[in-house]
Amino acid sequence: MVDETVKKRVAVVLFEGFTTLDAYGPIQAFGASRMTQPDGSMHRFFEIFTIADRVGPVRSGEGPATHADYTFDEAPNYDVLVVPGGFGTRNAVNDAAFLARLTAASLRATVTTTVCTGAALLARTGLMDGRPATSNKISWDWVLQQGPRVLWKRQARWVDDGNLVTSSGVSAGIDMALAVITRLLGRGVAVSAARTMEYVWHEDPNDDPFA
Amino acid sequence: MVDETVKKRVAVVLFEGFTTLDAYGPIQAFGASRMTQPDGSMHRFFEIFTIADRVGPVRSGEGPATHADYTFDEAPNYDVLVVPGGFGTRNAVNDAAFLARLTAASLRATVTTTVCTGAALLARTGLMDGRPATSNKISWDWVLQQGPRVLWKRQARWVDDGNLVTSSGVSAGIDMALAVITRLLGRGVAVSAARTMEYVWHEDPNDDPFA
Repeated sequence: MVDETVKKRVAVVLFEGFTTLDAYGPIQAFGASRMTQPDGSMHRFFEIFTIADRVGPVRSGEGPATHADYTFDEAPNYDVLVVPGGFGTRNAVNDAAFLARLTAASLRATVTTTVCTGAALLARTGLMDGRPATSNKISWDWVLQQGPRVLWKRQARWVDDGNLVTSSGVSAGIDMALAVITRLLGRGVAVSAARTMEYVWHEDPNDDPFA
Repeated sequence: MVDETVKKRVAVVLFEGFTTLDAYGPIQAFGASRMTQPDGSMHRFFEIFTIADRVGPVRSGEGPATHADYTFDEAPNYDVLVVPGGFGTRNAVNDAAFLARLTAASLRATVTTTVCTGAALLARTGLMDGRPATSNKISWDWVLQQGPRVLWKRQARWVDDGNLVTSSGVSAGIDMALAVITRLLGRGVAVSAARTMEYVWHEDPNDDPFA
C-alpha cells in the first residue's frame, strides 16, 4: 500500500480569461497519475486544487467557468504550482496586486510550471530573470516584452530549469506535466498516466513543430 | 465581418466525477475556432456553456470543480452536445432521472458527441442502439455491457455516424472535436484551431494506437 502521507499537491492558478486546456492538460496528467493497490483501491499520487483572488467561479477564455477552491492566502501547502496562460494575461500582467500574490504563490512551491502565456505572467514577477524559459509561439513577441531579462528559448516544447518548468502553447502543457511527473515519481507513472489518457506523449522537450 | 447570428452553440454535460480533459479537450478545440476580422476584433465560431442537474460547482474526477452554467431544463438552444466520461459514469449509468435528462438533451442537439466512457452513458439511453460507436479501451468491456445493441468498433480514434460522433479515450476527444469543426465550418478552421492550441492533430479517425 502506498503511504497516503507522501501524496503530492498541485495548485492551479485561475484568473479571468485563462485558457482552459492550459490548466486542464496538466490537471488531467497529474490526475491520471494513479495506481491500483493490492486491495483494489485506487491510489492517486497527486491532490489537485485551484486558487484565485476569490473562491467561486472564474470564467475562462473559452466560456466555461472553473470554481476556485481557495484564495491565494488560504490555500493549503502544495508542491507544484501551475500557471496557465490565456487572453486574460493581457490584463493580469498589469495587475500589481495579482502579481504580488503570484510571486508569493510561486515561492511556496517546490516546482513552478507555466503553460503558454502563463510564462508572461510569471516573467512580470521578475522570478524568471536570468533563467531559460519558453512560451507559446503565436504570442512570442508580446511574451518577450514581459520579461526582457529572461533567457527565452524559442525552439522548445518545454524548458526544465529545476524549480521552474515552462512550456509552449496549450497542449505542450500536457507533455511538460508528464515530464514533471517523471522527475517526481519516475517515468513509469508518467507512461501509465499518458496511456490512461490515451495520449500520445511528445517526450522530447526540443520537439517543437510550432517554433 | 462574420454574421454573429450564425454562431453555433456547444453544450457540455457535467456530472460528479466527470473526467476533466474529456470535457476540456473539445471545449478548447471549439474555443480555439476563431478568426481575426478586418476591424481587428476576434470572431469566435462557437459559444460554449455547461449544463448539469444543478447550476453551480460540479466536482471532476481529478479534483477541480467546473461551475455548471445551466440546468438541463433551462439551457438555451445548442447545436453540439458534448458528453464526457469518467469514474462518475459508474454511478450515472444507474441514475434513471439523469439518463432521461441526457436523452432529452441529446434529442435537442444537431450533433451529439461523446468522449471516453461518455459513450457508456449515452448507450444506456438507448439512443445508440444499432449505430456504430467507439469508446476508450481501458474500460472497453464495461462500456460494451452498457449498450449490448450498439455496433461497437474497437479500432477507432473516433466514429462519425452523422448526428452521433463518439470518440475514444480522453485526448481523442480533441481529435474528434476538430473533425466536427471540419464538418461544420471546413477544414481550414480546424487546422487553424489545432495550430492555435499548438496541438498535433491526429486527423485519421482509424489511427488508434490504444486499441
